[in-house]
Amino acid sequence: MAEPTRVRRRSNNRGGSRAQRASANIKQLPWRNLENPFPPIDILTADQIEDIHNASLTILEDIGLEILSDEAADLMKEHGADISSDKRHVKFDRNLIAEKLKLAPSEFTLHARNPAHNVHIGGKSVAFCSVSSAPNSSDVDGGRRPGNQVDFRNFLRLGQSLNIIHLFGGYPVEPIDIHPSIRHLECSYDFSVMSDKVFYTYALGRERLADDIEMTRIARGVSHEQIDQQPSIYSTINSNSPLKFDGPMLNGILDMARRNQAIILTPFTLAGAMAPVTLAGALAQQNAEALAGIALAQMARPGAPVVYGGFTSNVDMRSGAPAFGTPEYTKAAFASGQLARRHNVPYRSSAVNASNAADAQSAYETEMALWGAVMGGSQLIKHAAGWLEGGLCASFEKLILDVEMLQMMAETFAPIEVNDDTLGLDSIREAGPGGHFFGTAHTQERYETAFYAPMVSDWQNFESWQNAGSLSATARANTIFKQLLKDYEEPAIDEAIKEELAAYVAKRKEEGGAPTDF
Amino acid sequence: MAEPTRVRRRSNNRGGSRAQRASANIKQLPWRNLENPFPPIDILTADQIEDIHNASLTILEDIGLEILSDEAADLMKEHGADISSDKRHVKFDRNLIAEKLKLAPSEFTLHARNPAHNVHIGGKSVAFCSVSSAPNSSDVDGGRRPGNQVDFRNFLRLGQSLNIIHLFGGYPVEPIDIHPSIRHLECSYDFSVMSDKVFYTYALGRERLADDIEMTRIARGVSHEQIDQQPSIYSTINSNSPLKFDGPMLNGILDMARRNQAIILTPFTLAGAMAPVTLAGALAQQNAEALAGIALAQMARPGAPVVYGGFTSNVDMRSGAPAFGTPEYTKAAFASGQLARRHNVPYRSSAVNASNAADAQSAYETEMALWGAVMGGSQLIKHAAGWLEGGLCASFEKLILDVEMLQMMAETFAPIEVNDDTLGLDSIREAGPGGHFFGTAHTQERYETAFYAPMVSDWQNFESWQNAGSLSATARANTIFKQLLKDYEEPAIDEAIKEELAAYVAKRKEEGGAPTDF
Repeated sequence: MAEPTRVRRRSNNRGGSRAQRASANIKQLPWRNLENPFPPIDILTADQIEDIHNASLTILEDIGLEILSDEAADLMKEHGADISSDKRHVKFDRNLIAEKLKLAPSEFTLHARNPAHNVHIGGKSVAFCSVSSAPNSSDVDGGRRPGNQVDFRNFLRLGQSLNIIHLFGGYPVEPIDIHPSIRHLECSYDFSVMSDKVFYTYALGRERLADDIEMTRIARGVSHEQIDQQPSIYSTINSNSPLKFDGPMLNGILDMARRNQAIILTPFTLAGAMAPVTLAGALAQQNAEALAGIALAQMARPGAPVVYGGFTSNVDMRSGAPAFGTPEYTKAAFASGQLARRHNVPYRSSAVNASNAADAQSAYETEMALWGAVMGGSQLIKHAAGWLEGGLCASFEKLILDVEMLQMMAETFAPIEVNDDTLGLDSIREAGPGGHFFGTAHTQERYETAFYAPMVSDWQNFESWQNAGSLSATARANTIFKQLLKDYEEPAIDEAIKEELAAYVAKRKEEGGAPTDF
Repeated sequence: MAEPTRVRRRSNNRGGSRAQRASANIKQLPWRNLENPFPPIDILTADQIEDIHNASLTILEDIGLEILSDEAADLMKEHGADISSDKRHVKFDRNLIAEKLKLAPSEFTLHARNPAHNVHIGGKSVAFCSVSSAPNSSDVDGGRRPGNQVDFRNFLRLGQSLNIIHLFGGYPVEPIDIHPSIRHLECSYDFSVMSDKVFYTYALGRERLADDIEMTRIARGVSHEQIDQQPSIYSTINSNSPLKFDGPMLNGILDMARRNQAIILTPFTLAGAMAPVTLAGALAQQNAEALAGIALAQMARPGAPVVYGGFTSNVDMRSGAPAFGTPEYTKAAFASGQLARRHNVPYRSSAVNASNAADAQSAYETEMALWGAVMGGSQLIKHAAGWLEGGLCASFEKLILDVEMLQMMAETFAPIEVNDDTLGLDSIREAGPGGHFFGTAHTQERYETAFYAPMVSDWQNFESWQNAGSLSATARANTIFKQLLKDYEEPAIDEAIKEELAAYVAKRKEEGGAPTDF
């Protein structure tokens, strides 16, 4: 399960010389909750947003959804939805959707076991998640391999160590070497012990959700009542686009909402494949599916914390392969933000790409998606560090490259100070025409903290860079992630809580874990 | 001078099978004048902008500038500026600056020899320039080398072939194998013959400017009167920050303005080196220097076309090396746009980076700078394709990577259409819950043109990509630029004009070219 010996040795090392070296070598911004100061882009007019919204209500009224949960169907019927006799199809009146949407909160806080790592979702806040759910992982040294527990744990160590990563967006890589019946137990234990940031649960059956919520409660050291008051874990609900929700997803909405835990309703509307080839049509379908999920959550518990997920992108029409960080993706991210603001709920987007390597393509596609998210007003940005191949691979080097991009965005959020001190007329007078500023008092007082200090970027001149081995940014990222892993230290945890977590895992393993026949 | 045999052979190939192959292989957007639909970001309040502007006026009134041109000094004095007895220092009253600034036009058109390639500067327009003025060039095959005519010409061929490059921003790479006395003659000839887009002249002495303006006139086949009515060539005026203008730059303002040709006033205000370490101070100094240049242009000719150039960035405080595409750079790009809009003149920014290789760093820094320019409302974006190493190298692979980024931005500017057709409710009904959209009529009618088709990005799955050689985006860019060079065709030109240009070059060479002792 854990790696107790190794972990204990490292814990004893806290504050030691190795940690001091690492902090000197690798530049990081301090942990902070970010606020986006920029007004979002309205790429559509208010009328166009209403046209899309109304089209989605027509979809819900006239076409309806396929649903694979009797319990969800019964609850929907109880609240006035039109359920088919076999309970497999539902149609929603537009007034029912409007009534339930009003109950959703506009913002909420996700509580971490370390309260300093609580994350606010909504308003002007911006939270960055690490990559999640990749079936493969890779680094330059070892190449690409199927997801496994060693890599899973290393991504957890990095996610804990890197301050710009606010929370985990799921399992960074799927540890497929752990049997599915107990995988969630192992992973939630690792999340709880190796990290003190908010983590994630998958809607893959009711037992898993119950286990993960309970382990989150134990890790936080709070009562059942308290965790029901404080969202502390979250899950994404993907519809099976078009217009279908499977049983685990519907029951996931019910079980998470009833415990007041957060759900992100994210239709996977790839234009041209699972949604219309036109952005307007794909957005209408995305909106219909997301609103149906949000309405169900509010039926299960009025006021349940929900997030509007936008993931509309396009496919390569030659191969059917999904594409990310494209112009269409970026525009859909702007428009999705407008829809979420219309609904007055937080908005989740992603910083994603479809590159097969941590190269220039992976960087420019990620930047396009990141700016789409930021200027779309997204408050929760998933897959923001480490995603490659349209999500099929979690890359250690890409994680570091992305952390640099996220830190740069965070610094771009910081205001420009304008006052007599910063206008610095005295220093301009001191330097004078043709002079220089290196030596002025104004510069000397500020130069160590004046500018963002990069983690990966290399600004040496060409000759120095060449003499240092002509390393690409990806090669430098390789060195950095290995250094961070060397210097990782397990965050403080009450030993009694650790034992309680271990005991819970042992008991549930004895019981056989969770069913795997879903 | 030219390569007549080679060029003629290629001209004969127009419409042949090779050109057809190339157009099928390499995806390009058609030439079009772009409009930025997004409202710019106001990172500063109106009061903060006035504080910066007022600080810059105080600089001009109290500290003043060093100037190295008697003719400019005399003209400034004539218009009421305070000139020192040795004519080497000037101070401007704030009312004089305000009065001259009012004369500058808010927009204008640069006329190319092919009118289809005219470029509008100002308003909502966005024009992308290729890299310019790099002393070195590089590609993956040949490595890095000093600038030379072969590479210069290849960058011209690529700049002509790539539709997203609206105009040349200068010599893409400096052909230092041509003697400086005749270099401008050779280069203007190549610009005029190998391309039909707007090109550029350097303020390196009056003879060069006169030659380049005359060759532009000949290339366009217009009268002296007409070119004096129609800006057709442009130049950047860099102050020697802080607060100094050398003779060639001041005389360049005079000579360009008097002929109604366009000048971009771009102070090189690197915070911490040539400007205060604080962004507010660097922006105040940038604004002071730019306004002084704009005022002089309006003294030389009221209504002369000018552009406000913002290039404020920071340096690496450990090495003094300039950095680009940093958070500070991006924020300065936003703020500079606000200053330019306050002055009601067009705004020039850049899409730049400080990477030593065409790698992930080069891509994310360029994207940060590009988004800074776009969201700063810049209408003229220099160095947007091919720049590396903070401008010390023009890279063939980076040129192609940048073209992909520029095309993606151009497509992001295109509106989302919302109407009954694009909402596509019939296709959603046709696909139905759990269905798929590939086969619907709605998809079939649109799939070939629905999405941006990338030039460099590879969206194959990992296995296909690996089987194709695991090529990075940079490696693919290498193939693309070589294919484009193979398929390059010289644009149509009247043979009489070509002969007149050649005769002008021959005559001026006989006269010894331009002085090189500036």
